[in-house]
Amino acid sequence: MADPRFYTAKGPFSLAVIAEASGARVGTEPDAARMVADVAPLDRAGPDDLSFLDNKKYVAAFRASRAGASFVHPQFAHQAPAGMALLLSDKPYRSYALAAALFYGDDPAASVRAATAVIDPTARIGAAVSIGHHAVIGPGAEIGARARIGANVTIGRGVVLGEDCVVGAAVSLAYCIIGARTRILAGARIGEDGFGHALDATGHVKVPQLGRVIIGEDVEIGANATIDRGAGPDTVIGDGCKIDNLVQIGHNVQLGRGCILVSQTGISGSTRLGNFVIIGGQGGVAGHLTIGDGARVGAQGGVLKDIPAGASVSGTPAIPVQEWLRGHYLLRRLVGKKDR
Amino acid sequence: MADPRFYTAKGPFSLAVIAEASGARVGTEPDAARMVADVAPLDRAGPDDLSFLDNKKYVAAFRASRAGASFVHPQFAHQAPAGMALLLSDKPYRSYALAAALFYGDDPAASVRAATAVIDPTARIGAAVSIGHHAVIGPGAEIGARARIGANVTIGRGVVLGEDCVVGAAVSLAYCIIGARTRILAGARIGEDGFGHALDATGHVKVPQLGRVIIGEDVEIGANATIDRGAGPDTVIGDGCKIDNLVQIGHNVQLGRGCILVSQTGISGSTRLGNFVIIGGQGGVAGHLTIGDGARVGAQGGVLKDIPAGASVSGTPAIPVQEWLRGHYLLRRLVGKKDR
Amino acid sequence: MADPRFYTAKGPFSLAVIAEASGARVGTEPDAARMVADVAPLDRAGPDDLSFLDNKKYVAAFRASRAGASFVHPQFAHQAPAGMALLLSDKPYRSYALAAALFYGDDPAASVRAATAVIDPTARIGAAVSIGHHAVIGPGAEIGARARIGANVTIGRGVVLGEDCVVGAAVSLAYCIIGARTRILAGARIGEDGFGHALDATGHVKVPQLGRVIIGEDVEIGANATIDRGAGPDTVIGDGCKIDNLVQIGHNVQLGRGCILVSQTGISGSTRLGNFVIIGGQGGVAGHLTIGDGARVGAQGGVLKDIPAGASVSGTPAIPVQEWLRGHYLLRRLVGKKDR
Repeated sequence: MADPRFYTAKGPFSLAVIAEASGARVGTEPDAARMVADVAPLDRAGPDDLSFLDNKKYVAAFRASRAGASFVHPQFAHQAPAGMALLLSDKPYRSYALAAALFYGDDPAASVRAATAVIDPTARIGAAVSIGHHAVIGPGAEIGARARIGANVTIGRGVVLGEDCVVGAAVSLAYCIIGARTRILAGARIGEDGFGHALDATGHVKVPQLGRVIIGEDVEIGANATIDRGAGPDTVIGDGCKIDNLVQIGHNVQLGRGCILVSQTGISGSTRLGNFVIIGGQGGVAGHLTIGDGARVGAQGGVLKDIPAGASVSGTPAIPVQEWLRGHYLLRRLVGKKDR
Repeated sequence: MADPRFYTAKGPFSLAVIAEASGARVGTEPDAARMVADVAPLDRAGPDDLSFLDNKKYVAAFRASRAGASFVHPQFAHQAPAGMALLLSDKPYRSYALAAALFYGDDPAASVRAATAVIDPTARIGAAVSIGHHAVIGPGAEIGARARIGANVTIGRGVVLGEDCVVGAAVSLAYCIIGARTRILAGARIGEDGFGHALDATGHVKVPQLGRVIIGEDVEIGANATIDRGAGPDTVIGDGCKIDNLVQIGHNVQLGRGCILVSQTGISGSTRLGNFVIIGGQGGVAGHLTIGDGARVGAQGGVLKDIPAGASVSGTPAIPVQEWLRGHYLLRRLVGKKDR
Repeated sequence: MADPRFYTAKGPFSLAVIAEASGARVGTEPDAARMVADVAPLDRAGPDDLSFLDNKKYVAAFRASRAGASFVHPQFAHQAPAGMALLLSDKPYRSYALAAALFYGDDPAASVRAATAVIDPTARIGAAVSIGHHAVIGPGAEIGARARIGANVTIGRGVVLGEDCVVGAAVSLAYCIIGARTRILAGARIGEDGFGHALDATGHVKVPQLGRVIIGEDVEIGANATIDRGAGPDTVIGDGCKIDNLVQIGHNVQLGRGCILVSQTGISGSTRLGNFVIIGGQGGVAGHLTIGDGARVGAQGGVLKDIPAGASVSGTPAIPVQEWLRGHYLLRRLVGKKDR
């Protein structure tokens, strides 16, 4: 059970309701009315809890679990212990995530607008918006319905925030338009000046950055991440991208849909990523490159040229991952050591 | 045209005025009185817009542009389409940057001191300073004329901020003295404790950090970047340095003039950089080293020893860039692959 | 002498008092009553200052110093100049750190609770707590005695902060329990959502993160660092860990006691570090790994598998440091260059 100092579960819910919300189906008809009160991992769940089996490594834990109910792929259903109700799903982890959101999701009914927030009279605030203490919302900003804005947030002139967005503490948003259901974690900086200077031995001259940042729907942006606007085309983050903490996205970068950028990754100016690109932690991509759909860059990889769709690269300069590993092992052999 | 939700152009201006502000000269005398209303890239500019040609790759776009006027190097002037007014400059991009600042620069006349800002009575605030909502300015701080301080900023005791500085939202400044016209983007942390501990198996002991951070004029410090003060000599950032987002500068580091540190670079304690050093994204320099004037460190390079002036290095440990590339290609040949 | 705009020394103190506070002993009995007014490095110290010799490289400076008193290891005591009082210590740097804290440590008597701070009526605030302007403290939070909370800080529902903790400007704390004497520097983000998504080509689904972050005593967390909570077990930071600026610690990570993570390091989800592990700047550790007690990872090293206790590794993938260096030098020889 989650620590009640921090979390309040909303249940109980019947398995029928949970199945509906999570894209699963109840294993046997009589179980549809069965109630569960919380979610828990297999080894800690009790008779009132809902759990999940997502990885065959945990089949033994599944067989031994005391969980009252569990998501499971149909192929493992026969391994269930007696008395466990089943919610059958082709994607048990996805179903579990949706069920957990049912128990622990935000409650838009509890919207509060803090008295200490400063909201410009020309800003337009949607219905049931929550605004934290000392938040500042500038002229002409538009905040979509049910958005939740944390304490000490700064939202600049003209910013558009979509419906059901969540903005964490101390975030700043400027020169940006953000789609629905996007979550921006604490301390992220959206729309700051791109790193554009006319370099000159007599003194570098700043190039005014007159573009915008356009962020799609269902995006997550991690804590203390930074996404710059540029002087040229807009910086664009496609729908469903998940961007981890401390990631840097340079000016005029364009990300397609569903990209995953793990923590501390950096994307240099004007580079374009296709859809569903994955970049491991501390990866980097140089400027003005094109990374194809579904490409993968290993952790700490440094991409210095275009990467075709579907390729998997690692190292600096990044090369196909198998080749990179062969080089690593060859060098180890040459110096007389084996991989231990 | 920049999105009017976010930007307001100040023009129109005559080409004579623009030439004066940008270090250019008007191509033909009759054009001096011609007016332009905005800046725009070659492919989007219309008859009222000012554009620029800076790279010979764009000569075709220049020839086809509908821009009313354009900055151009004299050697490409003959390529201009009929009717385009020319502003001749040896540094067209620099001139464009200065012109764009004329159209979109800050307006110091519009200074506002938010009622919710908390300003210690012993702080000295210059003329025409803007202070955002919920900013906090501590005892004895000195804020230069026309400085603009964003919302939710924290300025500690004794901090000195020069004239015309810009401090973004949620920045914190402590134990620092900052020169004129320096810009500090949102969330940057200046003057926090250096990472100084007396390491000890019975428990590491913090060493009080009693120094300062001294930042020059015309510096830019990126979003969520961190510059620490130390226990020993001051941490010093020279005039005109441009420091990108999420860069870390350790305690007692000294940077000369005009250094460029690209995003997510880290400089360890007590290292000294000369003038006009350039470090690519995610580069790192170990502590107590000396990097000579004009040296360059490639992206993700890791510098573990001193680098002479003018050298260009890459890799970890960083070595001369050509040698690093030869090693990379040799290893690829040895494992039987060519660069694709 | 530290800049009085920023620092106020609390002395003078007698050497007897200082010896008591710093685990040293006065060299000769008559010196016990001698007073010193400040701390200073050997080359800048005068007759009223206390200095230290910690490294035999500085013996010459020690011999030439005008310092009135100095910490010194007994083996170098005979090198002291005439008239210098000695404080003998087996760990002179540690003793100096403790002495400097005596002169410049925080003064809990000067606690102030800013009128603009917003403190939920259900929060419990200990004795002599300082709270900065525009700080926000949520429902049910518990703040230990003598804690000092900076300006623009956001502390969420239920957070527990131990006695004598220091929380810098603009920090946000959520879903966390923090031990005594821990220091959290400006802009750090504790307890944000772990990067947990059920990846899916039809749209990644966020997994609710229902865990906590548990931080021990005497920890330091650097500016703009991020420590996530997860969906599974708590994220745990052991007593005495020192975590530098811009470090990322993923969800469900566990650190033992006394670990040192230098700036911009990243630890991926569910990895466990033993006690006194040291990771150099920009180092990375992949997820679900185990790093043994006392292991060391070099700067920019990328750890992709478990590391045994006491091992020292570098490179990506990280291998024993000597082997990594041999590979580096071998490759340089093969391309016909020597290390310069």
